[in-house]
Amino acid sequence: MTVLVLTSAQDVTADLVVAELHEQGVPLVRFDPADLPGEVALSTEYVRGEFRGYLSTGGRVASVDALRSVWVRRPGGAAAHAEEPSAWLAEETDHALYGMLDSTDARWMNHPSAAARARRKTWQMRVAHRSGFPVPATLVTTYPAMARRFAEQYRHVVVKSVSGKSPGDPPMALPTTLVPPDADFSGVAAGPTLFQRYIAKRADIRLTSIGDTHFAARKTAEAGQVDGRFGDTGHSWQPVDVPPQVARAVERYKRHASLAYGAFDFAEEEQTGTWWFLECNQGGQFGFVELDTGQPLARTVAEWLAAEPG
Amino acid sequence: MTVLVLTSAQDVTADLVVAELHEQGVPLVRFDPADLPGEVALSTEYVRGEFRGYLSTGGRVASVDALRSVWVRRPGGAAAHAEEPSAWLAEETDHALYGMLDSTDARWMNHPSAAARARRKTWQMRVAHRSGFPVPATLVTTYPAMARRFAEQYRHVVVKSVSGKSPGDPPMALPTTLVPPDADFSGVAAGPTLFQRYIAKRADIRLTSIGDTHFAARKTAEAGQVDGRFGDTGHSWQPVDVPPQVARAVERYKRHASLAYGAFDFAEEEQTGTWWFLECNQGGQFGFVELDTGQPLARTVAEWLAAEPG
Repeated sequence: MTVLVLTSAQDVTADLVVAELHEQGVPLVRFDPADLPGEVALSTEYVRGEFRGYLSTGGRVASVDALRSVWVRRPGGAAAHAEEPSAWLAEETDHALYGMLDSTDARWMNHPSAAARARRKTWQMRVAHRSGFPVPATLVTTYPAMARRFAEQYRHVVVKSVSGKSPGDPPMALPTTLVPPDADFSGVAAGPTLFQRYIAKRADIRLTSIGDTHFAARKTAEAGQVDGRFGDTGHSWQPVDVPPQVARAVERYKRHASLAYGAFDFAEEEQTGTWWFLECNQGGQFGFVELDTGQPLARTVAEWLAAEPG
Repeated sequence: MTVLVLTSAQDVTADLVVAELHEQGVPLVRFDPADLPGEVALSTEYVRGEFRGYLSTGGRVASVDALRSVWVRRPGGAAAHAEEPSAWLAEETDHALYGMLDSTDARWMNHPSAAARARRKTWQMRVAHRSGFPVPATLVTTYPAMARRFAEQYRHVVVKSVSGKSPGDPPMALPTTLVPPDADFSGVAAGPTLFQRYIAKRADIRLTSIGDTHFAARKTAEAGQVDGRFGDTGHSWQPVDVPPQVARAVERYKRHASLAYGAFDFAEEEQTGTWWFLECNQGGQFGFVELDTGQPLARTVAEWLAAEPG
């Protein structure tokens, strides 16, 4: 039973997990779908419902019938490194690879369909609320008047990316930013914009959920700090207990979203200490948390990937 | 309760359904996501689990809380017609629109997640077999030697696109083509290639499944004809009964795939009359079948979209 790791060649986080799998003696195959076809080859045969699939990389051939799990870390686009790349070749290769893997009984962290759905912030808002998290009021709009009304109603609102991505190539930094109610909102008509009630916070919380195991970490915020990802606060991530009602909400969220892995971000409210749901990144990094807190995140991912089917 | 039709401005098939909906007096909104933002505007507010969404197009505002169904026909890419289009704006707009629609209780024909999964041919092979259809032996490979072995084993094999798309821009026609066993298979290494056992057929079958209603049509094939989509055979589509075991397999397939609509293609085998599953196109056209057969396909789509939640 083999573990498949799909990621780019340069991926320190994947290296940590791969080292754990080696230590546990678990057979694994690691490659970047960008190297298929070329360094990586595949073959799949469907005969009267029988299915046989093979992957070869670095001269080794693995049968995908024996795949235990697939870790979709940070894979490149299919066929991106081909000698003559094209949109069509990318599509053909993507279908061939993921169609083959989907035909196996492997467990996924995370399945691409579930991942695609779980990336939508607006979908997250609803699922988070239904799972039992408090969620700050949120507006996504192309109407300048609606944006202004929202900002006047809540007084302190932030603006952030709808898709979680950043514009430009290479991407521009796009920190979550406070917007005053008297701002000029006319630009909203040019692209859907996400506004959210600002939660005055005393700390950022990052909860990394791996299968049934949840690790929370807390970083004290500077007064008035908006986006914990930017700027050095002089504080580091510290392990913190996961309140039982948060663990239950995390489990409901992940079950509903069909996710095996999720990195949840919360704002710990200044006055009440409430953890407000900000987002769940299904592909969120965990290396920086492990580094600060010593929480065994890579080992837990490796154990989940290596586990026998239950 | 409103029906939402997402499609491009030029879409004769959508026109047929829209005419039926008008006749039935069903309120509807039709637009192309390419025109958002711009001709189309949206706004969505999430407050303590309450959700309010609005869409405006052509000066009319519709509340999406009252959406009965969404028909994803042939929509353009989100923000494709924007004044300053970009990959980032497309992503932001896509998330804003589909995230909003996903937050409603509308029924989908078909939901984009289900549609994306159901497009994979290799996934289709497995689901079709499990649903009870006979499926021709199929190989997807980047190994020239595997391709040659498969062609020698089955003698008559065809090659076709893995993704169902065609290369080039504008796309080249890529008819399903017979490949002799002594062909040069070396090109397979440059891109995953799909080979399938050729079914000598006396007719093509197109089964259009709309909700719980299935319409089959049959077109007599010329001797040795491979791809029914190309070349005039002098025959037209004729209505034909759906055998009960086929109807059951169609229902199992669609349930498994979470599809409300599917256009199934079969080859009716020369000797036995068996319907061999070739593919299920979740977005397949139906106008040409209605034209030949007089089957009320547009009306049935309209009725499904207009139906009260059951």
